[in-house]
Amino acid sequence: MQIDENLKVHTEMWKLSSHVVGLEASIIREILKISSKPGVINFAGGLPAPELFPIKNLPKCMADVVTNFGPKAFQYSLSMGVVELREEIAKRATALGTPTTKENILITSGAQQAIELIARAFIEPGDFILTENPTYLGALQAFNYYQARYTSAEMDNEGMIIDQVEQKIKEHNPKLIYTVSNFQNPTGITMSLKRREQLVELAIKYDIPIIDDNPYGDIRFEGKHLPTLKSIGGDEVIALRTFSKIISPGMRIGWMNSPVDILQHFEKVKQCTDLHSGTFVQYLIYEFLSQGMLEPHLKTVCVDYKRKRDVMLESMRKYFPKGVTWTEPQGGLCLWVELPKHLSAKELLPKAIELEVAYVYGQPFFPSGEGENTLRLNYCNAAPDKIEEGIKRLGQLFAESI
Amino acid sequence: MQIDENLKVHTEMWKLSSHVVGLEASIIREILKISSKPGVINFAGGLPAPELFPIKNLPKCMADVVTNFGPKAFQYSLSMGVVELREEIAKRATALGTPTTKENILITSGAQQAIELIARAFIEPGDFILTENPTYLGALQAFNYYQARYTSAEMDNEGMIIDQVEQKIKEHNPKLIYTVSNFQNPTGITMSLKRREQLVELAIKYDIPIIDDNPYGDIRFEGKHLPTLKSIGGDEVIALRTFSKIISPGMRIGWMNSPVDILQHFEKVKQCTDLHSGTFVQYLIYEFLSQGMLEPHLKTVCVDYKRKRDVMLESMRKYFPKGVTWTEPQGGLCLWVELPKHLSAKELLPKAIELEVAYVYGQPFFPSGEGENTLRLNYCNAAPDKIEEGIKRLGQLFAESI
Repeated sequence: MQIDENLKVHTEMWKLSSHVVGLEASIIREILKISSKPGVINFAGGLPAPELFPIKNLPKCMADVVTNFGPKAFQYSLSMGVVELREEIAKRATALGTPTTKENILITSGAQQAIELIARAFIEPGDFILTENPTYLGALQAFNYYQARYTSAEMDNEGMIIDQVEQKIKEHNPKLIYTVSNFQNPTGITMSLKRREQLVELAIKYDIPIIDDNPYGDIRFEGKHLPTLKSIGGDEVIALRTFSKIISPGMRIGWMNSPVDILQHFEKVKQCTDLHSGTFVQYLIYEFLSQGMLEPHLKTVCVDYKRKRDVMLESMRKYFPKGVTWTEPQGGLCLWVELPKHLSAKELLPKAIELEVAYVYGQPFFPSGEGENTLRLNYCNAAPDKIEEGIKRLGQLFAESI
Repeated sequence: MQIDENLKVHTEMWKLSSHVVGLEASIIREILKISSKPGVINFAGGLPAPELFPIKNLPKCMADVVTNFGPKAFQYSLSMGVVELREEIAKRATALGTPTTKENILITSGAQQAIELIARAFIEPGDFILTENPTYLGALQAFNYYQARYTSAEMDNEGMIIDQVEQKIKEHNPKLIYTVSNFQNPTGITMSLKRREQLVELAIKYDIPIIDDNPYGDIRFEGKHLPTLKSIGGDEVIALRTFSKIISPGMRIGWMNSPVDILQHFEKVKQCTDLHSGTFVQYLIYEFLSQGMLEPHLKTVCVDYKRKRDVMLESMRKYFPKGVTWTEPQGGLCLWVELPKHLSAKELLPKAIELEVAYVYGQPFFPSGEGENTLRLNYCNAAPDKIEEGIKRLGQLFAESI
């Protein structure tokens, strides 16, 4: 039998789902492809500092997994996740002020998958989701597939402005409230305690689940930890957490802390999506946690990120021209820059790349597409001297463009 | 602030998507929960034999990953997968007769996720998928979420009956042809070379992509390897493969071998689903492959599974009553049993569990719900003496029930 060797363009010939043809690739991951070239000072992406990965401790944990769990660590496991890890996570959450049992915990392949499972479990076409404005791009991308619509509350330096939240709820009856309450992605803003309490009150009043996407909560390097939305709101809140920023993103292990009765639905969705998350890496993280390696590691991370944030803030004060403003986060990985209104961070990006500095422009983080003059900088991934050099180059670029 | 402590039933109060509320948990994974009790002889599930996992070699590979790739192995990586692994997979596919480059390869979290990505990229509500009858339950579960409908071709011992395939295509204009061509799950049947060629001809004639779900192809312990559908059909075929059955399912690493132009769409879908599959485990499998550990390991697996299949077949001949028939696969993990028409394998299962033997009843593998008198047995997971004992108990149960 002969097969025609002419190139067929399957994208045109095969009938793909309309949702998928219209799907945009994440601008962050596209920028990452460019910015990962050697020599580029990379303020783009949400990459944690690779030199901080606990590479010294992990080989011992790996050996312990093989010794302690043997073949079980390489076999299929339950969709809910490995029991030992779920117990360890529940223990830590409880110790930190959120009473939790393993029955509340579903292991996911990073927090991104948790967002995807939430979207799938809740969203029908046209449903509204209430978000911060701007909000995490990857969440918008996951929600978009399900044809969600957005209604957004502006933020001040205490987070979502609560009057707007109630007004938007009344207007649009959203299915979910989605927030990144700690060191928000992209702005770095943290919701104040008062606002947390008010948000939970509204969620109860209108019976809308709060999705608290909280990947950075453990990385507070200044000020005091605030009670989590989950610890305040209990079963009104589904908390999404991950080891990506605090141990290693390459392991793809996150979790949901959810009311028990609703978790069975997430379990079913998880099951038909990918059966379960990696067994071996779950045991690996279990060993890391149960051997008490996380807390000292977090201390190291916080010291390093604080130093880098300080270098970035000092450099911005020194090199950024008048008219440029920025946030000063007390934790997390990123801060947020606003240029004068007439500048476009998107148009400036190719020039920045020519200068071998990469950032993510802010517009895609806005559900309604404003924010042309904004950009996000990750201060954790580059070395301090590179941070200063990169900010200097950006400062010159901004000054020339104003 | 006080939170009401009364138990809220969120499943009732929060508005879940209708697709999800209707979703059934996989019967296999439910049976697995029961059958994983100690003492139960487990013919259920698709679990490979844990004693064969290459636990002796893997610690060396882990150490090599840390040495050779360092922090990179723990960082975010590309949605397409780690380049080194994609190259290694392409090299092996080419050597085995399917010319492949890394541009054809997308790494997935097991073949289950590949099915999920395919479903998402292709299926709109009401679309038809042409399958074998019966077919893999996990595929039906993934497709169901997207509200697919099914049209199925019966099989004889050469696989899908081709006249039926063409007739069903004409009747229903299916979006995809989904097949498990090697040692089919659940029947163990392998599609003959002639049927493969005929199926590809039909796919070209009607321009319908063939999805060849092929997790067992490397586990042939008898007879000669046949050319894969991909090697015959080239860009008409998207092949789904996995390391789950040949190295370790707990790593959750599979891949798609797809036409290049369509892979960009799968990449976008993968991106918003979980960003990428585990970086560390991808490098781990890369080390395993590039150090030449796979082929000797496969030999060990094949010898062991052939022995176990032989024990099961001999035991069935000895203990199963007249009127019970079964398939005799030349590879893979499972075989298929038909009881006399008036018996229900589902109704017999609780009695089997009482006798401490577990199997999966066949009905859920049929898109249209027939096959009450069928069941699937996995011969790979139990030790040979347990296989004989389990089959003996099942034989008695069947004899008493006839």
